[in-house]
Amino acid sequence: MPHQIYLKQIQRRVQQLLNHYIPAETVIPQRLHSAMRHSALNPGKRLRPALVYATGEMLGTSPEALDIPALVVELIHAYSLIHDDLPCMDDDDLRRGIPTCHIAFDEATAVLAGDALQTLAFELLATAEALSVEPQVRIEMLGELSRASGSLGMGGGQAIDLEMTDKLTDLATLEAMHRMKTGALINVSVKLGYLTSPVRDQGVLHSLQTYSQSLGLAFQIWDDVLDIEADTQTLGKPQGSDQAKNKSTFPALLGLEGAKQRAKELVESALHAVRQLPYESDNLAAFAEYMIKRNY
Amino acid sequence: MPHQIYLKQIQRRVQQLLNHYIPAETVIPQRLHSAMRHSALNPGKRLRPALVYATGEMLGTSPEALDIPALVVELIHAYSLIHDDLPCMDDDDLRRGIPTCHIAFDEATAVLAGDALQTLAFELLATAEALSVEPQVRIEMLGELSRASGSLGMGGGQAIDLEMTDKLTDLATLEAMHRMKTGALINVSVKLGYLTSPVRDQGVLHSLQTYSQSLGLAFQIWDDVLDIEADTQTLGKPQGSDQAKNKSTFPALLGLEGAKQRAKELVESALHAVRQLPYESDNLAAFAEYMIKRNY
Repeated sequence: MPHQIYLKQIQRRVQQLLNHYIPAETVIPQRLHSAMRHSALNPGKRLRPALVYATGEMLGTSPEALDIPALVVELIHAYSLIHDDLPCMDDDDLRRGIPTCHIAFDEATAVLAGDALQTLAFELLATAEALSVEPQVRIEMLGELSRASGSLGMGGGQAIDLEMTDKLTDLATLEAMHRMKTGALINVSVKLGYLTSPVRDQGVLHSLQTYSQSLGLAFQIWDDVLDIEADTQTLGKPQGSDQAKNKSTFPALLGLEGAKQRAKELVESALHAVRQLPYESDNLAAFAEYMIKRNY
Repeated sequence: MPHQIYLKQIQRRVQQLLNHYIPAETVIPQRLHSAMRHSALNPGKRLRPALVYATGEMLGTSPEALDIPALVVELIHAYSLIHDDLPCMDDDDLRRGIPTCHIAFDEATAVLAGDALQTLAFELLATAEALSVEPQVRIEMLGELSRASGSLGMGGGQAIDLEMTDKLTDLATLEAMHRMKTGALINVSVKLGYLTSPVRDQGVLHSLQTYSQSLGLAFQIWDDVLDIEADTQTLGKPQGSDQAKNKSTFPALLGLEGAKQRAKELVESALHAVRQLPYESDNLAAFAEYMIKRNY
């Protein structure tokens, strides 16, 4: 299937970029760099970089030009996972089937590794020569990435998620939390792909944002579905761990079938948005469809 | 004493900036923003912002133009203190006489508050309109701040500091660690003041870097001296806490008098560097002298 080949290519490419841009394990402080690499290089879906590439390539940009934006969203994602897994947060021992950072190393190193991956994302977006955009565009990208990552975006979403544990919540609150916790970084991945391209068209941007917002929420709902339906080996983490932690989930509020139905509607909305674009949007469409087909 | 009045003015100004730019406690997620404000607004010496202002004003820049660079170095400093105080790191309950972030709130909130203060620093440096420099200069500032903060700067220094606990070390290693852990952010404070100014002169920059490197190390040595000589109330944290944690210190390696002597030599070196400048360097000189006069 062509789309799976495209995704595999991106995963290989992101792996090479992470390997190249994160300091080697031989660079002092070695333990910190080893921890950064342990977590960031652990193979994942690379969904966020894939959205950067698929958006930017659709708008006429080469993969080479998109490497740095793709890399930095993955670095922010990797940092957030390390901190989310800490004992004081979700207390997870496994991530993608291997020990989480604080298990493989120690808590202090995990905190610092997350911190330094965040810093590295901003450093590379500010300085990497492989990103050849006008200074004003680079600044706009830095503004978008920082807003999406901070206390009104991803970081704030994680804080709200922690507050919601062990509490009953409603659908609007749950959706608002996920729009911050995972949605903001998914949105900004598409936005960075757009900003790297030569296209400046408010209509195109609006459709892309409808796409990414729908896709981001569908992604999260499907995560909740998989937490119930998939087995531990496929997930790379214990099945049922959300329920065990008394986390509010979409299946809990909508029922399992209701949650699946909502995810499908969101994917339809994402597909509708990109099909209106005057570009070859097959890759973006395939990512939307993949959201509710994946089993991990 | 005029210099103390200048420093008080800066402290008030930084307090206003922090209050203005960190989201209010009423903004969702409230607990996260409260924690960010609790730690960042806790009155400190504001040494790093003071170096931004003193450097930039010496080179002909208005305080208003220096506000954002001054603010962002303090935000990075505040983030690092929150994470350094965590139980898995230095495990400190008191900071400047008030409960540390994880004591006043909880560990998860403290991790996220530190994370979000780091993000906010980069967001403001990228987007704040109060900073009116050319886009290229803004990018250079972002590059400098991120390099100084990351795994080869402040964050890496903290990792090395943790590795050194309970181990014998030599003077060169101890100095190298401090040049990363505290020196890098002190250096970049002076650098950001320079970059905000209209001056571009390699000789001036070189003297400023000699100044900031000497001052940064003198600052750290004096911290070690105060840990032995000052009382707990003046320090705002338990006196003797470095010794209690088996941390390598300059007095342990040089003796108390040897450490004081080394600090004085470094201050002399800093003074020598700024007196060569064709500018009115009294404020920078006074900061250097203050390094070994302060009692907290």
